[in-house]
Amino acid sequence: KDHRRAAPAASPGDEELRGAKVAFKMLISAFLCPGVSQSEYIAPCDCRREFICGFNGSAGTAIVTEQYAAMWTDGRYFLQASQQMDNNWTLMKMGLKETPSQEDWLISVLPENSKVGVDPWIIAADQWKNMSKALASAGHSLVAVQDNLIDAVWTDRPKRPSTQLRTLGLEYTGLSWQDKITSLRAKMTERKISWFVATALDEIAWLFNLRGADIEYNPVFFAYTIVGMNTIRFFVDLKRLSDPILRDHLQLDSPSKPELSIQTFPYESVYTELQAICAALGPKDKVWICDKASCSLTQVIPKAQRTPIPYTPLCLAKAVKNASEIQGMKMAHIKDAVALCELFAWLEKEVFSFLFFLKSQQKGFVGLSFPTISSVGPNGAIIHYRPLPETNRTLTMNEVYLIDSGAQYVDGTTDVTRTIHFGTPSAFEKECFTYVLKGHIAVSAAVFPNGTKGHLLDSFARAALWESGLDYLHGTGHGVGCFLNVHEGPCGISYKTFADEPLEAGMIVSDEPGYYEDGSFGIRLENVVLVVPAKPKYNYRNRGSLTFEPLTLVPIQVKMMNTEQLTQKERDWVNEYHRKCQEVVGAELERQGRKEALEWLVRETQPII
Amino acid sequence: KDHRRAAPAASPGDEELRGAKVAFKMLISAFLCPGVSQSEYIAPCDCRREFICGFNGSAGTAIVTEQYAAMWTDGRYFLQASQQMDNNWTLMKMGLKETPSQEDWLISVLPENSKVGVDPWIIAADQWKNMSKALASAGHSLVAVQDNLIDAVWTDRPKRPSTQLRTLGLEYTGLSWQDKITSLRAKMTERKISWFVATALDEIAWLFNLRGADIEYNPVFFAYTIVGMNTIRFFVDLKRLSDPILRDHLQLDSPSKPELSIQTFPYESVYTELQAICAALGPKDKVWICDKASCSLTQVIPKAQRTPIPYTPLCLAKAVKNASEIQGMKMAHIKDAVALCELFAWLEKEVFSFLFFLKSQQKGFVGLSFPTISSVGPNGAIIHYRPLPETNRTLTMNEVYLIDSGAQYVDGTTDVTRTIHFGTPSAFEKECFTYVLKGHIAVSAAVFPNGTKGHLLDSFARAALWESGLDYLHGTGHGVGCFLNVHEGPCGISYKTFADEPLEAGMIVSDEPGYYEDGSFGIRLENVVLVVPAKPKYNYRNRGSLTFEPLTLVPIQVKMMNTEQLTQKERDWVNEYHRKCQEVVGAELERQGRKEALEWLVRETQPII
Repeated sequence: KDHRRAAPAASPGDEELRGAKVAFKMLISAFLCPGVSQSEYIAPCDCRREFICGFNGSAGTAIVTEQYAAMWTDGRYFLQASQQMDNNWTLMKMGLKETPSQEDWLISVLPENSKVGVDPWIIAADQWKNMSKALASAGHSLVAVQDNLIDAVWTDRPKRPSTQLRTLGLEYTGLSWQDKITSLRAKMTERKISWFVATALDEIAWLFNLRGADIEYNPVFFAYTIVGMNTIRFFVDLKRLSDPILRDHLQLDSPSKPELSIQTFPYESVYTELQAICAALGPKDKVWICDKASCSLTQVIPKAQRTPIPYTPLCLAKAVKNASEIQGMKMAHIKDAVALCELFAWLEKEVFSFLFFLKSQQKGFVGLSFPTISSVGPNGAIIHYRPLPETNRTLTMNEVYLIDSGAQYVDGTTDVTRTIHFGTPSAFEKECFTYVLKGHIAVSAAVFPNGTKGHLLDSFARAALWESGLDYLHGTGHGVGCFLNVHEGPCGISYKTFADEPLEAGMIVSDEPGYYEDGSFGIRLENVVLVVPAKPKYNYRNRGSLTFEPLTLVPIQVKMMNTEQLTQKERDWVNEYHRKCQEVVGAELERQGRKEALEWLVRETQPII
Repeated sequence: KDHRRAAPAASPGDEELRGAKVAFKMLISAFLCPGVSQSEYIAPCDCRREFICGFNGSAGTAIVTEQYAAMWTDGRYFLQASQQMDNNWTLMKMGLKETPSQEDWLISVLPENSKVGVDPWIIAADQWKNMSKALASAGHSLVAVQDNLIDAVWTDRPKRPSTQLRTLGLEYTGLSWQDKITSLRAKMTERKISWFVATALDEIAWLFNLRGADIEYNPVFFAYTIVGMNTIRFFVDLKRLSDPILRDHLQLDSPSKPELSIQTFPYESVYTELQAICAALGPKDKVWICDKASCSLTQVIPKAQRTPIPYTPLCLAKAVKNASEIQGMKMAHIKDAVALCELFAWLEKEVFSFLFFLKSQQKGFVGLSFPTISSVGPNGAIIHYRPLPETNRTLTMNEVYLIDSGAQYVDGTTDVTRTIHFGTPSAFEKECFTYVLKGHIAVSAAVFPNGTKGHLLDSFARAALWESGLDYLHGTGHGVGCFLNVHEGPCGISYKTFADEPLEAGMIVSDEPGYYEDGSFGIRLENVVLVVPAKPKYNYRNRGSLTFEPLTLVPIQVKMMNTEQLTQKERDWVNEYHRKCQEVVGAELERQGRKEALEWLVRETQPII
């Protein structure tokens, strides 16, 4: 962890790079270091890509050959990665036409009949398949390297965390874990599936109504679960299960029914247990496993009996929030709005670190849902910038200020971005802000048929920017968990079309278009929005319609808008949104006696004409 | 052909269905009858699905089991298919949530360990792979049936056509076939490919600058081509190659260079020739073939040496029209507009068949590019309705009239749809027309970055309809060939994301949103539009921007618009479009001395306020 934070802009350690090169020189021609399968935020012990190249963004794959070291990441991270990596590394900018894919690049640089190594516990089964196929077509091969080569040179690698587990009651979850198991089994019966292997940490946390703190910002814990029709096997550091409240919650000592009895196993034994289960499979038994699970675990299941699925039934059930979860998410967003109103009211006094304190004062506060992104002027153009000592800038009156912050409350997870200016914004800053606002409204106010996939809404967020020749290089929205990961599948709003289940009422996504001018400023407007039924005039083929209801209720700075560039419809949207902010958050500020923040709120939510 | 047109709404012949059932009863549990791979319009000898079930739409797959007969088609054809098929058949409405996929349906109805038969010359290699995998996962298998079971009962099956071939000069094609071969080989060298097997008829026609008339509306001919680095093998009915002009064009008797010498072979010998080529392949030789080519031909190539590609280099090169082709397309659209202006000016006199005559009077007219769709009132709601004797309605003053017509000219291919009313449209008809117009303009006027895929524009066409709870069940646009198929890949505008290469300047697509009210009326507005560079205010990351330029120049009926529902921007678009219609088509009408049509044009292109 120290390593991760210390000097990210400095060299990743030429020593270490050379060490790694020597380590695999004898074995293979290239070593692939992807992100961890199924995880976005990862524990320090898994930050191998950062260790080797210095880049600490949430997405990126490093490849080291004997001669080259290259790292692929997407538009959000171009600037950050180029600053964090030294010149041993080539930055591969994904999404640009001239950037080769990892496969094409490997084929172009490798000598004939090369072996490319990868840790099979880290690469997802579907990635393995695609990469392996592409390499094979050019005469190379992908090989599993059981002992990760980076670990071999990473002498001070941290331990895997094992934090205390917390149980969540029905008032938050709306559904007991027993009921969740029962409906999972019903889906298994329907599809003639005998076993289900759960590998995604947030799915396991959701299934058992448990939360942990193994991974910063994501309230999850390291575990595996294998569910059969009559058994439940739970793989976790057994030391964590001594708490009587937890034992009672999971009914470990007195299960209500035999088929709801949980057998516990050490975390590491999942491989051998799954092997044992597979050895006893009948010829017709089928096993469900997510196609994003690790290659290692996937390949334990004989191919004839393996049914890989892009989205597990847990992922799909978790995505559609129930009434208790929606209620919790609404509460969490009001609390977050209170904190932000307070912050903004105080911001002129430059009290940034006050934010954490303010959120922590709110009832049920657990921690942040991701590292707060707070940037001034040019730093805002690094899309996921976090303040670091050497680049930290003092807030001045003359720069655009972008703040992206979220929190985990016991009743919900938040994620909000606002862009504000304390002095006088330039004409270009206002122009760009207005395009971004138009895009935000176009998505938020869109009415669309049931069954529409999020990628079909992505261009709505960009049309105004496109019309002026501008754009932003990230998706428009991601799924948001309920006191779970702030980024979750299976839905989202992006120009990318994978990982995109149809939107349905009860799902929660973010709506966050932006514009980033390198070296100058960054703008982003983000609300978390709930998918709700819409009732337009007609109902074509009885399909029903959907729209979004903003859960985030924080004013959008009018000073940054060119209101005359907005249509009447857009102005109406802004006024209705601000009316609701004032009504809902105003009442809570009043209740909490936060006078200054309330005054700020009232001032910032005056209708525009 | 007679069978195809005779009585499509009547039974497909219970006799025939029973015959087919008996034929495969001994062998397999189900027989799959997909459309022909890589072809939309097909020759009468290939209309097996229509023969067996009666439905003659351009897309649909029939599956017959011992107990059931079901046919899958998409939203465009729900109404038509339900009218054309008798109650032996179940209509499977693709795109509806409750409709099972073909694979899921087969798995649900088949007894264990069933064999599903399919003609390997008809099913595409990638379809075979997907279907085979899905069936295998449930214990069934997909088997190749070399003698098509439908042919066994189809006693009067027509012969494969062999029409005269026409050569196209440089003034139309802009590029000689020799240059096309040379740039194809350059791409092969770049990707280390030794052989390329061309199977798509329009790609072969484009490559050799030849056109035929084997398939109605599509000016193509049955052929295969295999290109190596030094040889060109052309498989075609050899009787067609006696014409001296053709022999000269292809340099059959005196090739300029040995590597540009074309060896000719009978059409049927492609299988054995490809076998011979493959037998002589070195271990590093790779063969390109489209993944939509037939399973039969694909599997001749050993798997290790086969490189299936979704889009061949010919498909990609053909999609981006060169200056001569764009010039030809513009000319063709002006001619079409002349014909349509004349038609509309005369329509009050109910002279429908006059249209063909009028188009045929235009210079370089070859034939239609698809069957003219002309419908009144409720018939308009059958999306691809063609007039048939029993359902033909007389034009009255009180119904919406939809006409979708296209032509093949020697310089280009057209496709235009207009919806007009000769009396007084209802408020609902005008409302829907206005939503469709808003969608049409939103796509046509969109500015978007280079590299954008068409599916990202599809929702622009629907937003206004969605907002009122309406929609249409087809894509928004398709690629258009240049004196080639009116529907061509690899680009388009659709909510579907497959078959969707990024749009680039020089590509030509249609923009055709619609609205269809079952049993009442149909509305569609279609222009063919050229992708052109746009020059917005800014140029983010130097990517460049694109927009569309309408090639179709036929007035849009103002009487059908609720102009007050249009934004100022939309009104400006309509006025500028009509100004251009009047300027360009007006000049041509004047030149041709078509006074009445000119008067009509001037009247219909008056600015709106």
